[in-house]
Amino acid sequence: MTEFNKRLQELESLAPDLFGGDFLLTWENSLDNLKAVMLVAEMLQMLHKKKIPWRIFDYGLAISIFRDNSTRTRFSFASAVNGLGLALSELDEVKSQIAHGETVRETANMISFLTEVIGIRDDMYPGEGHTYMQEVADAVSEGHANGVLAQRPTLVNLQCDLDHPTQSMSDLLKLKDYFGGWDALKGKKIAMSWAYSPSYGKPLSVPQGVINLMTRFGMDVVLAHPEGYDLLPDTLDTAKTFANQSGGSFTHVHSMAEAFKDADIVYPKSWAPMAVMQKRTELLKQGDKQGLKDLEQHCLAENKRHMDWECTEDMMKITKAGNALYEHCLPADISGISCEHGEVAKTVFERYRLHTYQEAGYKPFVIAAMIFMSKVRQPVTKLSSFTR
Amino acid sequence: MTEFNKRLQELESLAPDLFGGDFLLTWENSLDNLKAVMLVAEMLQMLHKKKIPWRIFDYGLAISIFRDNSTRTRFSFASAVNGLGLALSELDEVKSQIAHGETVRETANMISFLTEVIGIRDDMYPGEGHTYMQEVADAVSEGHANGVLAQRPTLVNLQCDLDHPTQSMSDLLKLKDYFGGWDALKGKKIAMSWAYSPSYGKPLSVPQGVINLMTRFGMDVVLAHPEGYDLLPDTLDTAKTFANQSGGSFTHVHSMAEAFKDADIVYPKSWAPMAVMQKRTELLKQGDKQGLKDLEQHCLAENKRHMDWECTEDMMKITKAGNALYEHCLPADISGISCEHGEVAKTVFERYRLHTYQEAGYKPFVIAAMIFMSKVRQPVTKLSSFTR
Amino acid sequence: MTEFNKRLQELESLAPDLFGGDFLLTWENSLDNLKAVMLVAEMLQMLHKKKIPWRIFDYGLAISIFRDNSTRTRFSFASAVNGLGLALSELDEVKSQIAHGETVRETANMISFLTEVIGIRDDMYPGEGHTYMQEVADAVSEGHANGVLAQRPTLVNLQCDLDHPTQSMSDLLKLKDYFGGWDALKGKKIAMSWAYSPSYGKPLSVPQGVINLMTRFGMDVVLAHPEGYDLLPDTLDTAKTFANQSGGSFTHVHSMAEAFKDADIVYPKSWAPMAVMQKRTELLKQGDKQGLKDLEQHCLAENKRHMDWECTEDMMKITKAGNALYEHCLPADISGISCEHGEVAKTVFERYRLHTYQEAGYKPFVIAAMIFMSKVRQPVTKLSSFTR
Repeated sequence: MTEFNKRLQELESLAPDLFGGDFLLTWENSLDNLKAVMLVAEMLQMLHKKKIPWRIFDYGLAISIFRDNSTRTRFSFASAVNGLGLALSELDEVKSQIAHGETVRETANMISFLTEVIGIRDDMYPGEGHTYMQEVADAVSEGHANGVLAQRPTLVNLQCDLDHPTQSMSDLLKLKDYFGGWDALKGKKIAMSWAYSPSYGKPLSVPQGVINLMTRFGMDVVLAHPEGYDLLPDTLDTAKTFANQSGGSFTHVHSMAEAFKDADIVYPKSWAPMAVMQKRTELLKQGDKQGLKDLEQHCLAENKRHMDWECTEDMMKITKAGNALYEHCLPADISGISCEHGEVAKTVFERYRLHTYQEAGYKPFVIAAMIFMSKVRQPVTKLSSFTR
Repeated sequence: MTEFNKRLQELESLAPDLFGGDFLLTWENSLDNLKAVMLVAEMLQMLHKKKIPWRIFDYGLAISIFRDNSTRTRFSFASAVNGLGLALSELDEVKSQIAHGETVRETANMISFLTEVIGIRDDMYPGEGHTYMQEVADAVSEGHANGVLAQRPTLVNLQCDLDHPTQSMSDLLKLKDYFGGWDALKGKKIAMSWAYSPSYGKPLSVPQGVINLMTRFGMDVVLAHPEGYDLLPDTLDTAKTFANQSGGSFTHVHSMAEAFKDADIVYPKSWAPMAVMQKRTELLKQGDKQGLKDLEQHCLAENKRHMDWECTEDMMKITKAGNALYEHCLPADISGISCEHGEVAKTVFERYRLHTYQEAGYKPFVIAAMIFMSKVRQPVTKLSSFTR
Repeated sequence: MTEFNKRLQELESLAPDLFGGDFLLTWENSLDNLKAVMLVAEMLQMLHKKKIPWRIFDYGLAISIFRDNSTRTRFSFASAVNGLGLALSELDEVKSQIAHGETVRETANMISFLTEVIGIRDDMYPGEGHTYMQEVADAVSEGHANGVLAQRPTLVNLQCDLDHPTQSMSDLLKLKDYFGGWDALKGKKIAMSWAYSPSYGKPLSVPQGVINLMTRFGMDVVLAHPEGYDLLPDTLDTAKTFANQSGGSFTHVHSMAEAFKDADIVYPKSWAPMAVMQKRTELLKQGDKQGLKDLEQHCLAENKRHMDWECTEDMMKITKAGNALYEHCLPADISGISCEHGEVAKTVFERYRLHTYQEAGYKPFVIAAMIFMSKVRQPVTKLSSFTR
């Protein structure tokens, strides 16, 4: 357990302030908070590999609210809360009375009498997801303060319109493992690049999350996308600031090749232009089906103009030693497998496939670590106790 | 733990006969049974507030069968069985083969080989819900008697066409806490009043449950509704008898103001007239969509004639010291929030909102207490053991 | 615990090789494997009857994938994994992103980071179900070998196109109990007979499973069906071989009466002709709704020609002493109850109803035993430890 103890010691040297809090956005959190979550995630994974239980609850519920389809995040959350000792209850908004006009405030309390954690995925509408999470957070705070709830449930962002912290931290943990520690990440070039996909409407939270996390670890982050596929402007500003603080860099280009040039890591992924997502939200709210259909057609046509934004073998050749690590949040749109033309060539994906599985494999432990750090007052002591 | 021990002593003084039984209707149960369930509910809530585990099962399933949408009851049941140590399995009648002609008798046994509890909500059709619960109860009794089931699952009524015992006992526990004990409830006037709502088809079980529970605790219960919004006649008869036995009273009026006059508690809530619910059941069975549409239109129009049945600030002023406690099973139809005109004025609801949350907060523990009393032969001994 | 210890001793005398493996088809397994699973199932059921916990996991997920509706198998799986200490997560393919083009290989890994067991029911399409299970098995093997998964989930076949091992072993355990041991089964005649049903499209796995399991225990197995209602030819070949090996027999006839003559056990059950199932699979894949409708009409008409294939009182009279044991996987199509004319007469079914419930009651424990034998290196030691 040398590796475990090394992390325990590093955790002891940090000053996180996660106890009793929610985890909504990485950029609201100190570097110590981020490191603490990731170190705990690694330690919980180590315990799991040795089948040493890491339960911290005697009983209680964990509630997931998914406003978008999901396999991997659903099962990651299910796994995380199971390991910690909670039972999962999914709030299905069709089954429940939420559809019947209940306010968020009321529902949040009604489901939380024995609830320790609420995980929310709400990534479809710019300006909505994070706001919704804050409303739920405020509601359970009020309930707890007024004796309605015996405990305040911890909120975990399982993907919102702004950030996807459990994903970006899993991405980073893979890099940490691959390159050999936090320090090894400094000066590494990562290309967070838009890539072509025949689908449309993919959220912005992954690229926004990646540029705002990797810049905090001294990496040289390059964001690349075709003209018009902008992210939310605020998220670019924070990424710049983080890069300055960490001694890394943040560059914004409109060429995949430029981003891939000498990159140590590439992250080619499709997303919808912010303006399209905003328009789509409006149309959805208005129930304008024809408008939505027209928008989709327009977007797919626009996307098609950028079919050359594909992570091909040729594109990989221009990366550092032709050998950059390929990352993806999965599922990837693989040319010749899931679609005719997509984000990545079949041979490239296949070469890195198991790496992407390992990348995804951190997510249950990142989620568990967020909950652990919010619920355990003495994390070092608690973690030590597991191995005794 | 003085408060805990006080309840333990009171429990010891009672002679409940709940062991091995189901909990379907409050009016089938002795006063000692009702008090025992409520005392245990309070004690389990106290343990929960101190995070002292109150598990009684090593393993086993709890099954919920919901024939109507529900958020709060679903999560209350999920919470209760989790605290007791069971895993929840929801019997979704769309997913299952019940739709394919299985008999209730067979299904009840097929799902119960490791099942300790079955919670059922079936409140839509007068004459159906309670009957269905009895069929399930008979089926698992037969299975248990014949060696099919190693244990007989306990049935818990999570709302039927007749009664909503987990709700009414939560309502009563809130009153007990608010006024300070069983004795303080004697002579308190509670107005169980119909109120206007733009929706239709709400079940009768809440008012029927309330008038049949509160009358047993010496309260002065006034039932109020417009002409034609009758409850099932039997439930009025039992309420009268209970009032006579307990030294309380039961009055039936057709004016909200008369009911609210000097009331200590008001419970303004919409329901559909019994005759409408019966008609609706027929039409549903016949699959008469046009008939259902017509009935709905007719009812909504009829409801509109009674829009003055709203719990307004003016109406509250005529209650005892203008200060009656407002109760509701939630979600309430709040004027200006969930609808233009509804059951209660926005300012009235907001003033009592946290009280209604606390009221709801008893429900998981009432459910747990019903199960506890059915499964634990020596409840006092068991409860004492938790705090050691 | 004499009965328990007797089984423990028998288990000790066997040489099963189930550790670390999947359970997909009975005919891939040695007789010792089959006996071991069934003995463990009996022992777990005994523990359950005495409410002695038989948990083997501290935490972890069990995932079920159901591609067909199911009540009893769903709850059997839920029960089995609960008793063993796992939390159930159902992979609902509508909710998940599988519908969005993910490969089986990827999904299998993405859901398995903390997963100990995957139970699959995929019985609709000949040539598909078993193949799908093998793909999932290969995927998690690859993931485990490459450090993606800390443990390799055990696959359990909850019904495929070829076999329904948890059903057939439950059927056999009922026979073992009814007749009094493995040896008592030798030479017993079982009629696995097609029976008329007004439905269509029922899978072949039950009859295929039964003829391939009962022949291994020295029974005289007679398969009966009208001309054209063939099973997969391979499954008949293996049944013949097994009968030769065990000293039993396998006969194939086209008369229910011939099969029932002097039978000790009858298993009258509807299934669709193999050729129809294959045709149906094609049409489903092509989305040919009219073709499917036509096929259904054709089949129902064809079925009607064989309405005399019913397990009537008269038919029962020709069985051994008019007193054969009736078996069924449930739900049965009961004449006069679930349909006008069906597989079995009402009075016959009612006489054996509780027997069929007991038959079904083995299933949770058969599933649990499959998992137990795959996960526990020293099953005898572990089982002994439960009773201490």
